[in-house]
Amino acid sequence: MHGTEIGKPLPGFAGGTLDRVDPIRSDPARLAAAFADPATRQLVLDGLEPVEEDGHLVLEPVEPGADVANHVLLGIDPHGRPIFARLVADLGPAMVPTPRSRAIAGLVPAEEVALYGTARSLVHWHARHRFCSVCGGATNPAKAGWARRCELCAAEHFPRTDPVVIMLAEHRGRVLVGRQHSWPQGRYSALAGFVEPGETIEEAVAREIYEEAGVRVRNVRYVTSQPWPFPSSLMIACIAQADDDTLAVDASEIEHAFWCDVEGVRAAMNEDPAAPFIAPSPMAVAWHLLDHWLANVAPGTASA
Amino acid sequence: MHGTEIGKPLPGFAGGTLDRVDPIRSDPARLAAAFADPATRQLVLDGLEPVEEDGHLVLEPVEPGADVANHVLLGIDPHGRPIFARLVADLGPAMVPTPRSRAIAGLVPAEEVALYGTARSLVHWHARHRFCSVCGGATNPAKAGWARRCELCAAEHFPRTDPVVIMLAEHRGRVLVGRQHSWPQGRYSALAGFVEPGETIEEAVAREIYEEAGVRVRNVRYVTSQPWPFPSSLMIACIAQADDDTLAVDASEIEHAFWCDVEGVRAAMNEDPAAPFIAPSPMAVAWHLLDHWLANVAPGTASA
Repeated sequence: MHGTEIGKPLPGFAGGTLDRVDPIRSDPARLAAAFADPATRQLVLDGLEPVEEDGHLVLEPVEPGADVANHVLLGIDPHGRPIFARLVADLGPAMVPTPRSRAIAGLVPAEEVALYGTARSLVHWHARHRFCSVCGGATNPAKAGWARRCELCAAEHFPRTDPVVIMLAEHRGRVLVGRQHSWPQGRYSALAGFVEPGETIEEAVAREIYEEAGVRVRNVRYVTSQPWPFPSSLMIACIAQADDDTLAVDASEIEHAFWCDVEGVRAAMNEDPAAPFIAPSPMAVAWHLLDHWLANVAPGTASA
Repeated sequence: MHGTEIGKPLPGFAGGTLDRVDPIRSDPARLAAAFADPATRQLVLDGLEPVEEDGHLVLEPVEPGADVANHVLLGIDPHGRPIFARLVADLGPAMVPTPRSRAIAGLVPAEEVALYGTARSLVHWHARHRFCSVCGGATNPAKAGWARRCELCAAEHFPRTDPVVIMLAEHRGRVLVGRQHSWPQGRYSALAGFVEPGETIEEAVAREIYEEAGVRVRNVRYVTSQPWPFPSSLMIACIAQADDDTLAVDASEIEHAFWCDVEGVRAAMNEDPAAPFIAPSPMAVAWHLLDHWLANVAPGTASA
């Protein structure tokens, strides 16, 4: 089903196995029955952080007397269990992601990482949308936690998913990698940025590479995608062709960027200490972009 | 630059030619200079509707005494002119799109359709985000209209772009087309739905086809994308492989769906009155999906 090659690991937060049961969301009787089902489990979160035990996320029965209206129905798992997460009005400083929330990708199976990501995005969205953006009135959860409705003006609001392009420009057998000021020393990755209203994926890729590195590209090809729950992005990974390798880096956006050849990328992906940069982790879609480029596009591969 | 084949028309609202000049948005001095530039033009809108004259959108000089804070900087056009749109607090019933706003695609050049789409999405977003979703306080435009900031809690809010998957399932040389209850008689198109938090593009395609038509798919391939300003979607067009052609249509979502063969799709695209359905217009990305399938995937083409 997923766009990456068979046998490869999935990017982190991809690979969810819950049936999202859209029809139950709008059916109060079926929703109440799912919440009351003895098999039903609630995903335990510590604020927005994951809670892991023995290599699995912690799921617990719903507390007696709990109100379904304060929960989001994440879906039905492959064991037939309805899985909910509890909505929290005020998360305070817990909104800022900690290293623990990313490290979960190495601790539990991929489908549980995906479950955590979905829950985190939704719990975060609810906590930041307690008021109506149209009229300022109080909002309440609706549709099993997949919407909020304004008490005052009846406006409906739906969870955000922000599309982000993340991409490699390539030029004569080399790809462009860059680093942000805040990253650990030596770490480089693909450039990235939000898709704006009024542009295609292809136009956003070209605009972002030009804004950040001063490079004009064409022939944008889609590679794969990833949900990224910090707080709620859809990463859209692409490769594009540059005609010129002159760089004009925007220092307000990135600290440094350079064109890396196949040997350098391969060394980084192999975690060779002599590599010209430290690659992103396999949970990041940028790792999959670099891997795809090495396997399918770089000089010496079939399509190069 | 765009993913569709060279020489083909672009989907409607794609193909913008403005430089979005991100650095100017956060620089009050440069923004004020752009607003005061005698070359500066303001895109005229009637509520959210386009205003056209002699085959072009109407642009006019900024009114004397106008406040840059109530405007969004759409970008710098190829003639070097800063182009703004005026933000409107209350759009009232003008929020609902009329046929006129879609028909603009046939009346003005593609780059002007893209300019209108960008302006429409942003003006709509501002009118629906006058209050802070975090605390209910009043918000004001910031970053040249590319954000709003809360007066009370200082939260920053950014324009939404909602990713939508739109897709053809294919099975043994036929593709699945469906129609919504509200559509004109005979009109069929690709199925579509919003990408949700916690899923990839590929997972959203599989979920939506299963929800709407009961068909399981795999091997999802990206084809192209389109901004759709009603109010602010990013259409992500894909083709996926079905293993079985049994349909179980969800009548709450779509009225009818059927598998159409190459001859039927070709007749529909040629606007043949005897075609089994009426195809979407070339401004819709669904037209481009059907065209791509006929040219590259359908039986008899190189890759089939």
